[in-house]
Amino acid sequence: MRHLLDTQHLSREDALTILDIAEDMADTQHREVKKLPTLRGKTVVNLFFEDSTRTRISFEAAAKRLSADVINFSTKGSSVSKGESLQDTAQTLQAMGADAVVIRHGASGAPRTLATSGWITAGVVNAGDGTHEHPTQALLDAFTIRKRRFGDDSRGRDLAGVKVTIVGDVLHSRVARSNVWLLTALGAEVTLVSPPTLVPQDVSAWPATISYDLDSAIAAGPDALMMLRIQLERMSAAYFPTEREYSRRWGLDATRLAALPADSIVMHPGPMNRGLEISADAADSPRSTVLDQVRAGVSVRMAVLYLLLSGQADHDDEQKKEDER
Amino acid sequence: MRHLLDTQHLSREDALTILDIAEDMADTQHREVKKLPTLRGKTVVNLFFEDSTRTRISFEAAAKRLSADVINFSTKGSSVSKGESLQDTAQTLQAMGADAVVIRHGASGAPRTLATSGWITAGVVNAGDGTHEHPTQALLDAFTIRKRRFGDDSRGRDLAGVKVTIVGDVLHSRVARSNVWLLTALGAEVTLVSPPTLVPQDVSAWPATISYDLDSAIAAGPDALMMLRIQLERMSAAYFPTEREYSRRWGLDATRLAALPADSIVMHPGPMNRGLEISADAADSPRSTVLDQVRAGVSVRMAVLYLLLSGQADHDDEQKKEDER
Amino acid sequence: MRHLLDTQHLSREDALTILDIAEDMADTQHREVKKLPTLRGKTVVNLFFEDSTRTRISFEAAAKRLSADVINFSTKGSSVSKGESLQDTAQTLQAMGADAVVIRHGASGAPRTLATSGWITAGVVNAGDGTHEHPTQALLDAFTIRKRRFGDDSRGRDLAGVKVTIVGDVLHSRVARSNVWLLTALGAEVTLVSPPTLVPQDVSAWPATISYDLDSAIAAGPDALMMLRIQLERMSAAYFPTEREYSRRWGLDATRLAALPADSIVMHPGPMNRGLEISADAADSPRSTVLDQVRAGVSVRMAVLYLLLSGQADHDDEQKKEDER
Repeated sequence: MRHLLDTQHLSREDALTILDIAEDMADTQHREVKKLPTLRGKTVVNLFFEDSTRTRISFEAAAKRLSADVINFSTKGSSVSKGESLQDTAQTLQAMGADAVVIRHGASGAPRTLATSGWITAGVVNAGDGTHEHPTQALLDAFTIRKRRFGDDSRGRDLAGVKVTIVGDVLHSRVARSNVWLLTALGAEVTLVSPPTLVPQDVSAWPATISYDLDSAIAAGPDALMMLRIQLERMSAAYFPTEREYSRRWGLDATRLAALPADSIVMHPGPMNRGLEISADAADSPRSTVLDQVRAGVSVRMAVLYLLLSGQADHDDEQKKEDER
Repeated sequence: MRHLLDTQHLSREDALTILDIAEDMADTQHREVKKLPTLRGKTVVNLFFEDSTRTRISFEAAAKRLSADVINFSTKGSSVSKGESLQDTAQTLQAMGADAVVIRHGASGAPRTLATSGWITAGVVNAGDGTHEHPTQALLDAFTIRKRRFGDDSRGRDLAGVKVTIVGDVLHSRVARSNVWLLTALGAEVTLVSPPTLVPQDVSAWPATISYDLDSAIAAGPDALMMLRIQLERMSAAYFPTEREYSRRWGLDATRLAALPADSIVMHPGPMNRGLEISADAADSPRSTVLDQVRAGVSVRMAVLYLLLSGQADHDDEQKKEDER
Repeated sequence: MRHLLDTQHLSREDALTILDIAEDMADTQHREVKKLPTLRGKTVVNLFFEDSTRTRISFEAAAKRLSADVINFSTKGSSVSKGESLQDTAQTLQAMGADAVVIRHGASGAPRTLATSGWITAGVVNAGDGTHEHPTQALLDAFTIRKRRFGDDSRGRDLAGVKVTIVGDVLHSRVARSNVWLLTALGAEVTLVSPPTLVPQDVSAWPATISYDLDSAIAAGPDALMMLRIQLERMSAAYFPTEREYSRRWGLDATRLAALPADSIVMHPGPMNRGLEISADAADSPRSTVLDQVRAGVSVRMAVLYLLLSGQADHDDEQKKEDER
């Protein structure tokens, strides 16, 4: 694997490979010394054009567990026209010896531009681009669902027949997009529940069912109910009912929690707006996988960095053995 | 030791253990390679809700000297209600594998909430909370006083009979609070000198003598005179005389410096407002321990992180040896 | 070498030593594991009073490749008077165990003050001070010119007879100053091309020829044409023609690029204002060494940190061997 840009073009096989290696990575985190020497001497740059402390430190922790050096490069919009800035920044990072660039960018498609432009040879990981995708989030979600379902017997398994319902602002959500593609590739059935104003225009082309009614979606008995974060700063009156109205119609409260099947789980990508899209009851209930998701995030990102960066090392290793003969 | 939340509840024995291990840590810093492998694979998160570059990099240096991985997480007040934010942030850090959380927070009591809420199992170190406490500052101050007094013969000794005078804005000072509790637990006699408007209402419950007159406090012959930093941004006209007036009545200048006993020391937690609470003469005099305090800060923080994090490692080590039999 | 403060006082011999060690460092970057154990246990502090992500991460990458611990300390202008702030900050960093301080400061001369004040014993590297100097930039430029000219046969060679033309806002450019001193010390002939309002008053004392006409400077056939970055934020109407006028008269466009000798190179310290001082054609042409310069930056900074910090280690090593006898 050279890059991880989206889940839409990620094959079922590649997705399962990432999830299975993430299982191995998770196992190493119970050891006394959690650090692995795998990526010693490799440099991972976190190139964040948008703030996202959680995602940044998850990648940072993942890279450090693999003994890579991490350089954080946070930049806020400059006066330079975006395209040029991205090219020059990327080429500079590569010239400084970056082996992988983890990019978060406000513009949908920026990671793909970076990876396919010929500007750099470093591996590129999309850590969220505009309203497009956030593939490691979907991978950690799939990991979490699989782990809850199959436990230690997860390796090699897909999500055939698992019913996942995603609730919230689908229009602006890269988390929803990445999950729809990945989960369906793994065999899951996905239902989207959203206020009518927050449904993407092209949603009919998505491999998912649309609903506007959370209660009937819950009555359908999903295995996993994924509440999206409402990003109030992105909302305008045109799209959005009042917070109270939103919470009443599309929020997960104690009543709705109780209406879920006994073994279904409640997911959230975090950070949660407690009391808005999810009540404290639901957030802290044993069904909540919020913290499993965070934990899975480090394992999945370790797996992705490993797959992007150690192939080269393997190759070099063999080369070195060749040379030594 | 599971956490370090304050000095008020720190026993004399635990305090001496920290100080003695800090002596060992200080000794290792004269070696050619200052780095110790002790905490390899452990992750220390610096969770700073308030800016404090000095304290943050002192903890960062301490953790790195012990080979821990360090993740810096600085966050400025968000719109999320504080309690929820702290819980979710803490649980997220734990789920990412944080073994210790070093927290600086504007709200008094936040570190205790973190440590006792059941949210996390990671060790918590209070790096300053509101106007409450700053325990590692007091520990480094005690270390510095002891070292000046007993030199290489410091281990195991307390501060019985040592007279310490703390001068400045006691009302807002977590440094003063932490020092009063720790120094008196170690046997020192503490005098507080403060403008009348900057004395805490409950000061009569503190194990310290109050004075409003710096000159008579100096005439009493303290072994250590600790000048607090005036935080102008916290001051309002209600509390505070003019800077000139403050400096004249409660500042340490050359005349007062000369009036101190020959072997008494001058302390300051830094950064100093030269010319306000302390003159350049005093700051740079051989009696000044300002830089010894900074140096002690790294050693004390290494000791604290060691005590919080290596217990687990020792246990695991033994477990491993068990398993190998 | 104790410090690197400028190139004006850097001898030809010391400059060649740095460039030759940088060649060795560059060679190590093609290995499978790029990381060297050379500076393990050493602490490098990046003390940046001005923002400069590129320079900071180049030093950070260089230090980490040598296995040093890196602490980033960015500080924006405080209310404290600058001299005191710098002294206290420097002494604090030293007391925390900094072995080298890489300083970027808005005031010309701040690094020299730091190094010669007696405040600290740590090595000091000037990473850009006011309009004074930026010595590692000049060193990486010299490295790049030498490498293009002599390839693998660069070691030990100087730049005798090489013609370098530097174009732009010479008045405010520390890059221009550092290059003039270094390149001429290495035997190069330097021509400065600048709008008349952007020529320093004392330029007659510089070992360089002045010109106001880019086209005739290009007609003279330089071996290297170095375009300075226009820092629009520093410009005022008093100095500066319109952007369009600047670009037309002092910018490098396709026509001027074509007028250069066939083997001459185009340099830029980055980040480029594409379309202002340099066109995209020129920036991305095979003559452009912009990315070679970035790459050389890491190697040169590795060499400088090595020279500043490993001398001590060597000494300690010998001391240790002495002790062991």
